[in-house]
This record gives sequence, structure tokens and C-alpha cells, in this order.
Amino acid sequence: MGISTQIESSIANSSMIRKMFEEGDRRRQLYGEDKVFDLSIGNPIFEPPAEVQSNLLKLIQSDERGTHRYMPNSGFPKTRQYIAGMLNDETGLSFGENDIIMTAGAGGALNVIFKALLNPGDEVIVFKPYFLEYNAYVNNYGGEICAVKTREDFQLDFAALEEKLSVKTKAVLINSPNNPTGVIYSEEELAQLGQLLKHKSAEFGQAISLISDEPYRRIVYETTAPSIFPHYENAIVATSYSKDLAMPGERIGYIAISPKHQDHDLLSVGAVLSLRILGFVNAPALMQRLLPLVGNACVDLAPYRSNRDLLYNHLIKIGFSCIKPAGAFYLFPKSPIEDDLAFIEAAQQLNLLMVPGSGFGMPGYFRISFCFETEFIERSLPVFTDLARQYHLID
Amino acid sequence: MGISTQIESSIANSSMIRKMFEEGDRRRQLYGEDKVFDLSIGNPIFEPPAEVQSNLLKLIQSDERGTHRYMPNSGFPKTRQYIAGMLNDETGLSFGENDIIMTAGAGGALNVIFKALLNPGDEVIVFKPYFLEYNAYVNNYGGEICAVKTREDFQLDFAALEEKLSVKTKAVLINSPNNPTGVIYSEEELAQLGQLLKHKSAEFGQAISLISDEPYRRIVYETTAPSIFPHYENAIVATSYSKDLAMPGERIGYIAISPKHQDHDLLSVGAVLSLRILGFVNAPALMQRLLPLVGNACVDLAPYRSNRDLLYNHLIKIGFSCIKPAGAFYLFPKSPIEDDLAFIEAAQQLNLLMVPGSGFGMPGYFRISFCFETEFIERSLPVFTDLARQYHLID
Repeated sequence: MGISTQIESSIANSSMIRKMFEEGDRRRQLYGEDKVFDLSIGNPIFEPPAEVQSNLLKLIQSDERGTHRYMPNSGFPKTRQYIAGMLNDETGLSFGENDIIMTAGAGGALNVIFKALLNPGDEVIVFKPYFLEYNAYVNNYGGEICAVKTREDFQLDFAALEEKLSVKTKAVLINSPNNPTGVIYSEEELAQLGQLLKHKSAEFGQAISLISDEPYRRIVYETTAPSIFPHYENAIVATSYSKDLAMPGERIGYIAISPKHQDHDLLSVGAVLSLRILGFVNAPALMQRLLPLVGNACVDLAPYRSNRDLLYNHLIKIGFSCIKPAGAFYLFPKSPIEDDLAFIEAAQQLNLLMVPGSGFGMPGYFRISFCFETEFIERSLPVFTDLARQYHLID
Repeated sequence: MGISTQIESSIANSSMIRKMFEEGDRRRQLYGEDKVFDLSIGNPIFEPPAEVQSNLLKLIQSDERGTHRYMPNSGFPKTRQYIAGMLNDETGLSFGENDIIMTAGAGGALNVIFKALLNPGDEVIVFKPYFLEYNAYVNNYGGEICAVKTREDFQLDFAALEEKLSVKTKAVLINSPNNPTGVIYSEEELAQLGQLLKHKSAEFGQAISLISDEPYRRIVYETTAPSIFPHYENAIVATSYSKDLAMPGERIGYIAISPKHQDHDLLSVGAVLSLRILGFVNAPALMQRLLPLVGNACVDLAPYRSNRDLLYNHLIKIGFSCIKPAGAFYLFPKSPIEDDLAFIEAAQQLNLLMVPGSGFGMPGYFRISFCFETEFIERSLPVFTDLARQYHLID
């Protein structure tokens, strides 16, 4: 009997990537921490903005009582009012505190949304390449992922999307700025997406929810990442403060349900119930109370921008093919050989650790994370050059 | 299409209790906060022990870097080593850091365990009365709850249990000290339970896990609550610091898997995977780091003990029938009429709010929470007397 057969087979499937991480650990121990360039994970090396520390101190020193106690499952009303107000300023809509549900990060938010939304057999459309954990999040509740191809520049391919939309489509999930490509969807693209989903919801006689997973929304460079809310009524945002406040370990984020969503009332009550029965109960209290105090604080984007430019320019110079990311902190270049796993293994031999595109449902590419010190990125450049030589991209 | 049909029907089913809480809110607004005795919820009114505040300050003021970042999904090694050491001191077993998985409280821990353990159709045995949320936790993963009756004094009825054990039994879930009865299972009872499960695991050729949900383990009065680990090998603990550190809003707890569990290796890897794909990702970082610093700190139990004695003695004096709780902060008296819902509604008319036994799978009883200021409990006593008069328990 043992454990869950589903979990047992997931363990077997994930062993390839785990092996890769273990190999990284082995190499760090063997060659020294500073000789191994682990650009595989998106764990920001920077500290939270100064406002985080000063306001945490203020909160803990305060003699307000009951601040670590249970609050409503959806979170402290003050925090939810603050977020609703911020969204209203941005979108011109009328979010109220009941449209906001505080969650354990975006991963928690997505699980709560899928639990509340999905019936067995329902499909959720995602766009390649995509965070493979989405498969698990959707399968947890009996749903199926339907992955749609994108254009050469990773922007939406509306013809390909339209082909996959059907009565089985319960939701379309986007991630902009995108992990792993760094692509941002423009106002025009979101408007076109909203129009298509509105048309298809009417045709099928049921709401297709548009879910925007946007933890990187404020990690942007030359441009901003627009909100989905003005472009579509059946819209839901799942997000976290892991990246802009650089505190992914604290698990704080939220769900925002458009007040115009046609299943709004059931969905908001259902999401709170799902949050409760999945055992989250509520998002961590102290971090909820922090949010209204730190306002728009955000990590310094300058080092990310420098890192991006440094790496992107170098990769292009040494013959790699790559889209310049507009946001997030990843590059997603083409692998010089079709077999991205073999390429990643070759890079590993040079003590350079990255993630194969297969880990994002898109073989033939690889992901580089650049949320590290610029000095570290600089030191990694010659290794990329060696790798390019090995594959005859340069002499 | 709307939302998940399962969630939609759960919303409908939970509306009765929600209505009751709304009625409480209405009465508080109508009659004033201090005129309504809400003894319905287990949200401790006391502040965390002083060590919590001083060590949180220390942690936040420290200039150690990276403390809000991702750590291994199972939690900071230091915290897990600390808990493993504590369990080793207590049980004489050899827990290592990989046997401990930090979770978002006990609710998170139980969901992770059931996700890792259950196949559709598997049964989990619980004992009446029990926390009804267990039904949802088990159903989330396709399992079924099988509720076994207990003796008059709410202690285990081994004959009744043995009747229900079958090849479908994946786990037996106990909660000691118990919510809602306050009952503690003794060393002798746990030993007998361990023997029975060992015998049945062998008979069925598969491990029956014994899961101990023990957030009240340190909320005890005349006696202590013994550990399950010395009494059974296939044992798993799910617990939280919500009650002993009085910080239920912060969502911090852990899973401990016996190093002797026969499916140990798969189960510990499977639990970490489940924690990740359910979107918890990891337990909140700051609270994880707090635990080794506060050691055995615990809320002052004296007010709880006073409240228990005050309420228990009064209830007995005015004719209610009730077991004296050995732990936790609830009383579970018999309702003077069979229809506990009608009784709870009558109490509500007197501005006294409690939970019907039906909310714990045991009609004919009701639950009183006493985690409040003693002065508040004192002021509620005359209302209990009025209620007893109304039901002719006294003249």
C-alpha cells in the first residue's frame, strides 16, 4: 500500500532535476562555493528594502494586543482594504475588502483558486514555456493543463490559443513578466486576449476565468507590466511579495477577484473556504500587517538591470540566440544543440548550473537566473565563453 | 459551469454555522461587545510568552543576510535539528533533520500528510467527537473518514475501533489533548492502541499509520500528554505552536515522521513534495527561526486552569453533566435536550454563544471554549445559571 501512488510517481519523475541539484551540491563541496556558478534558482540574493526591517521592528515593539491571533480566514480587514484601494487607484474598478484574500504567496494563491474553481476534467490553458509546477497545481484538483505554443518572441499566438479554447476550458493562466522568458504582455495584447475570452465565454455560455500569476509584476526594466483587470471582467490575480520585497521565505501574497467576475460571489466565498480546508487557514499574520506599512517599497532594480544587460550582451556576442527580457530576472536562450539536457550537463561539467528548457515544457532552450551579485555574474561570463567555444558558436 | 461543485456544496453545508456566527456579530453590535459571551471559538486571548517578542526583535535586528529567502522546502536545517533533538530527548529514538518537515501549522501538516499518504478510497479512522475539518482534509485527497464511537468518558473504545479496522484503513488519527473534550490518552491506552495497530498492520500486510494531531500537547493541567512515538513504529506527529506560543495567526508547526516508520523514506520525500505542490512551498521563515530561540517557552497555564475549574464547578453545580478536561481549553457538556442545535439557539437568545456537538459529529453535546480572561468567564456564569433554569436543571 505504501504512500499515495500519485505522489510516488511524481517522486520518480522529479528525480532527474533533483539529481541535477544534488550534482550542484556535490560540485560546490568539491570545488568551493565561489568556483561553482549556480544560476539555476530564482532565490533573490538581495535583502528586503529597508522599510521591511524598520516596520517589522515597529510592529513587534508595538503593544497592540492580539496581533498574532487568528483573524478572518481571508486576512486582516485593514490589509485587504489597503490592497483593494491600491487596485482601485490603478484600475478604476471598485474592489472591496471581500475581493481580496491574503495567501501564502502566489503558489498558495493558485492552489486556492484551482481548488475553488475546478471540477475533474476541466482544462486550464497555459503558454509555453511555463512553470511546470502549474501541472501539479491543476492536477491536485482533477484538472488538466493544456499548453499552447507561443510565437518565436514568446508573445501570445492568438490563433493557436483560439484552437484550444473549448467548453472544457475553465481558465487561462498567464504569467507576465514571464518566468522563464522575461516577456511582458502589452496593453494591446491583454485587450485582444480579453476580447477573445469574452467572445468565447459568451459562445460557450460559461465564464472562462483569466488568471494572472504576477509575482514579477514590479520587476520590470524599460516598461511596466499592465494590469489584466481593465481588459477582462472574469479576471483573477494571484500574486506574492516574494520578489519585490525579496522575502520569498515568508510566504505572503494575495488573490484579487474582479468585482465584475460573473461568478464573483460564489468564487470569493469558495476561495476563502478552500484556503481554510487546504490547511492554510490564513496568510502569516505579521507579514499581513507589514504590507500597508511598507507601501510601494521595492528592491533596487538597478543590479538586476545591470545583470541582465551584462549577460544578455555577452550571450549575443558569443553567438547565443536570446530574447532580451523586459522583466523578471531570467534569460531563456536557445540551446546550441537540440538536446537541452545534454547541453545543461555539459555546462555542469564547467561548474555552471542552469535549468533545461524541458523543465518549462520547452526543450531546446535553457534558463539562466540572474538575481545575484553583479560581481558573481561577471565572473561567470568566461565560463559562458568556454561553453560557446565548446559548441563552436565562436572560435 | 460556475465554480467547483464540491466547493459549492460545501458552501451550502457550512451556511448553518456561518449563520450562527453572523448572528453572534449581529448581537455584539446590538447589545455591545461586553454583553455578549462568545465562548464559541478557540482563539486564545492571551499574548505570546515574553520570549517571543524579545527574540523576534533580536532576529529582525540581526544583520545576518538571507534570512527571508527560500530555504529547503522542509525548512531551515537548524530549526529541524532543534526539533529532532527535542524529540530524541523525549522519546529515546533517533530523529534526524530529514524526519522533520516545517509546516504552516497543524492544518497545513495534516493536509501535507494526507496528500502524501492517501489513495482514493483509503479510509482514515477518527474518534467521536472530532474536529469536522478532518472530513475536508481527508476528502481533499479522495480519502474517506470513518468515525468510531468512544466510551462515555470519551476514552478509546478498542472493541469499536477493531471492528472498523480493515484493509482500507490507511491511517488512524488521534487528537490528545482532545478538542472538544479535553481528554488525554494515557501511556497505557497509547500502548494498547500501538499493539492493536501493529497486529493489524501485520495481519493486513501494510502499514496503518497512526497520526497524532497534537497542537494542545502542552496545554495540560494535572497530568502530561504522552508521546505516541515510543508506542508504535508507523507513527506521524502533526502539530503547531498556535496554542503553546499563542500565535495561531502566524501558521507555524511541523510534521515528525518516526524514523522507524516502515514507509519512512518514501513518506518523508513524498511529504516534502506535497508541501511544495500544494503551494505551501515552506513554513514562514521568520517564525521557523524563532523556534530554537524560545525553547520551551509556553503561555501561562494558570488562567486556563482557573477558567476550567470555575466553569466546570459551576456547570456541575447547576446540573449539567460534563467530563472534567485534563487538557486543551474546552468543555464538552451534555446538552440538556437531545437537539443540541435548539439548545445552542436558546443560549444565543441569552447572548451566550457556543458550538453544538453536531459541529463535532456528536449531537446531544455542546462545546464551551474557555481561552479568555477569567473575569469574562466569571461574568458568563449567571447566564449559564439562567440557561439551566430554563431547562429545569435547577429551580
